[in-house]
Amino acid sequence: MTKVSVLYPNGANTKFDMNYYLAKHIPMVKQKLGSACKEVAVEEGIAGGVPGAAATYVAMAQLAFDSINAFQAAFGPHAEAIMGDIPNYTNVKPVVQISEVKMWRGLEP
Amino acid sequence: MTKVSVLYPNGANTKFDMNYYLAKHIPMVKQKLGSACKEVAVEEGIAGGVPGAAATYVAMAQLAFDSINAFQAAFGPHAEAIMGDIPNYTNVKPVVQISEVKMWRGLEP
Repeated sequence: MTKVSVLYPNGANTKFDMNYYLAKHIPMVKQKLGSACKEVAVEEGIAGGVPGAAATYVAMAQLAFDSINAFQAAFGPHAEAIMGDIPNYTNVKPVVQISEVKMWRGLEP
Repeated sequence: MTKVSVLYPNGANTKFDMNYYLAKHIPMVKQKLGSACKEVAVEEGIAGGVPGAAATYVAMAQLAFDSINAFQAAFGPHAEAIMGDIPNYTNVKPVVQISEVKMWRGLEP
């Protein structure tokens, strides 16, 4: 199983419209990716790991797929529409990472 | 719901023993945190977001709790044991972030 992480860096000038992201962007992404996308999680950064530290990422999303090929096949045809929506909710460029799931809900995937 | 993300930066000299992490570290963490920890996910970084790019993080873990207070109450007494185990599997310092879950398995939390 493959997870795609989309991490939005936090900073003094970072803007991120979580309402738009949850109400418009993520539903559009889910509609475009269809059944290839098995799960979506979204979090809002609250704090860093030590007292008083800011969160490194203002928002994070994780999308699960059966495989990297399943992700690429689903995402490729819609990459432009999905990426083109980013300026509608943030002024930062996300860090994107593709990972292999080693543990899933506390169990082997 | 609160998620704690633990992100291990990738680099030319990064070492990360995924076998130890899955077989020893995560089970120890789950045992110490007990029922306060609702879910654990672990991923291994495979690639970045553009062709040929390396993953930003060699490994990522997410731990779910009912609230930030539940996390702090469970983690505090065991922080030293948990943090002290880190050099047994990696030579990098993780980025830690506390986040509020906005979407969970594709649904509101």
